[in-house]
Amino acid sequence: MKRSDRLVGLTNYFINHPRKLTQLTYFTDRFQASKSSISEDLDIINDMFEKEGIGSLERLAGAAGGTQYVPKFDKEKSLSFIKKICKELQDPSRILPGGYLYMSDLLGSPSILKEIGKAFVSAFYDKKIDAVVTVETKGIPIAYAIAEYLNVPVVIIRRNMRVTEGSSVSINYVSGRSQRIQTMVLPKRNLQEGLNVCIIDDFMKAGGTVTGMISLLEEFNATVVGIGVFAEAKDEEDERIINEYISLVKVANVDAKSKRIDVSIGSFYNK
Amino acid sequence: MKRSDRLVGLTNYFINHPRKLTQLTYFTDRFQASKSSISEDLDIINDMFEKEGIGSLERLAGAAGGTQYVPKFDKEKSLSFIKKICKELQDPSRILPGGYLYMSDLLGSPSILKEIGKAFVSAFYDKKIDAVVTVETKGIPIAYAIAEYLNVPVVIIRRNMRVTEGSSVSINYVSGRSQRIQTMVLPKRNLQEGLNVCIIDDFMKAGGTVTGMISLLEEFNATVVGIGVFAEAKDEEDERIINEYISLVKVANVDAKSKRIDVSIGSFYNK
Repeated sequence: MKRSDRLVGLTNYFINHPRKLTQLTYFTDRFQASKSSISEDLDIINDMFEKEGIGSLERLAGAAGGTQYVPKFDKEKSLSFIKKICKELQDPSRILPGGYLYMSDLLGSPSILKEIGKAFVSAFYDKKIDAVVTVETKGIPIAYAIAEYLNVPVVIIRRNMRVTEGSSVSINYVSGRSQRIQTMVLPKRNLQEGLNVCIIDDFMKAGGTVTGMISLLEEFNATVVGIGVFAEAKDEEDERIINEYISLVKVANVDAKSKRIDVSIGSFYNK
Repeated sequence: MKRSDRLVGLTNYFINHPRKLTQLTYFTDRFQASKSSISEDLDIINDMFEKEGIGSLERLAGAAGGTQYVPKFDKEKSLSFIKKICKELQDPSRILPGGYLYMSDLLGSPSILKEIGKAFVSAFYDKKIDAVVTVETKGIPIAYAIAEYLNVPVVIIRRNMRVTEGSSVSINYVSGRSQRIQTMVLPKRNLQEGLNVCIIDDFMKAGGTVTGMISLLEEFNATVVGIGVFAEAKDEEDERIINEYISLVKVANVDAKSKRIDVSIGSFYNK
C-alpha cells in the first residue's frame, strides 16, 4: 500500500477513534507497512492535525504504549461558531409564549452539535473526565457530542422511575425559581462509584436542575469536575445557586412585546 | 501544501461532513492547490474509502456541482459487530426484574452507537430521508448516530407537553400489550410538513409506540420511508402491529429463573 493510501486510511482511523490508544503493530498489520513508514505517516498526520486546529497525535513509548488522537479544537473557530449561534438566537420569531426561546432546530442538527461538542471539549481539555452525565431530554445530544471526543460513556438521569432499568437511586429536589418539588432517578448500574464526571445540560436558569444532579451524583460518590450548559439565562445570574460552570451563550431579556432578545457569548469564550 | 498534507486535510473534511456537497473551489482555496491536483487527491481518497468499506466520494458536474462523501459501510463488518452485541446481550446478569434486559451501558457508549449508526445507514442506503424521528428517551442517541451520517436533522417526540416548545400537535394511542392510553407530543415547529422521515427507537415489543409515532407523523403529512429499532422482542412477533421494519437484534425468552436469554441477529442482517 502506498503512503498516500495509508494517510487516508490512518486519518479516517484516528478521526473515528479519538482518545483510543492503539499499538503501532495494529497499523503495520492493517496497512502492510514497516514501523518506520507508519511512524513517518504519523508525523505527517500530527503536523496536519495541528495545522488544521483539530488536536494532535500523542505517542506513548513502551510495551503498553501506542498512539492516540487527542482532539483539541481551535478556540477562534469555536468563538466564531458561537457568534453565529448568538445571531441566530436573536431572531424574534424564536420567542415562545412565556418568554421561552425556541432552540430545538439548533439542537436537532448533527453538524451544529458537532461544533457544540468541540467548543466544550476545548473548555474541558485539562480535566480528567470518566463519564458525561446529563438529564433527559434536551441535554442528551449535547452530552453525546462531547463524550464522543472524550471516548467516555454518557449517563442519562431520568425524571421518572422506569421498570426497565433495575434498582435505582432517586432524589427529590426543589427546582430553582418555581420552587416545585421534582424527582430525578439514576439506575445503580448506570454509573460506577467514584468516577470523575462532567455535567451537561441544554439550558440553565437559576440552576436548580444542576444542583439536583450534583446531589444525586453524591450518592454515587462521583466527583463533578466540570459543568457545562449550552445556554444560560443571564437575568438569573444574581440568584444562581451554582458558581462554577461554563456556558456557550447567555440569553437575556426575552421580551415578547418588543420582540427583542439579547444573546451574548457565554463565560468560557468571553475571556 | 504537499499532497500528503492535503490528503490528511481532505480526509478529515469528508469524514466530518458526510453528504455535504462541496465545490472544488472551496478545496483549491483552502489547500492552495490546482483543480487537477485536488481532483487527483479525490481519486485517491475515493479508492481508499471504497477499499476500507466506508463509502465513496460522489462527484456532480456543472455549476451547482461538487463532491460529497456518501457513507455506506461494509455489511460484513456490521454483521460481525451485531454478532458481538448478541453475545454481550446474552449475559445473564443483564436480566432485570420483570423480564427486561439491561442495555443502557451499550447505548451509553459513543463507539457502540457509531457502529449502530453505520449498520442502519447501510440498511437505509436506498431511501431518501429528510429527517430522523425518535421518541424520548433511549432512542435519541441512536437517532443522532444515524442522522450524522445522513446529514439530516433529528426530531424528538415528547411524552408530555412542554411549555418551552410552543404550539404542538398531540395524540393519544394505545400501547401494545398493556393496552394503556399514552400521549405523544410534537411541537409544530419541530417538523416541516410533507417530509420523508425514518422512525428510530431502541426497543420494540408489540409495536404500539411505533404505531403511535406513525399516527402523529400523519398529522405532519410525513411519509415514513423506514422504521428501525435496535432490538425487538421476538416473543411478540405474531401479534405485532407493524410489518415493515428493521431490527439489529432479536431478544427472546428473557427468563430470570433459568438465567437464560436468547438473542439472535435481527431482520436486515439475517438475510
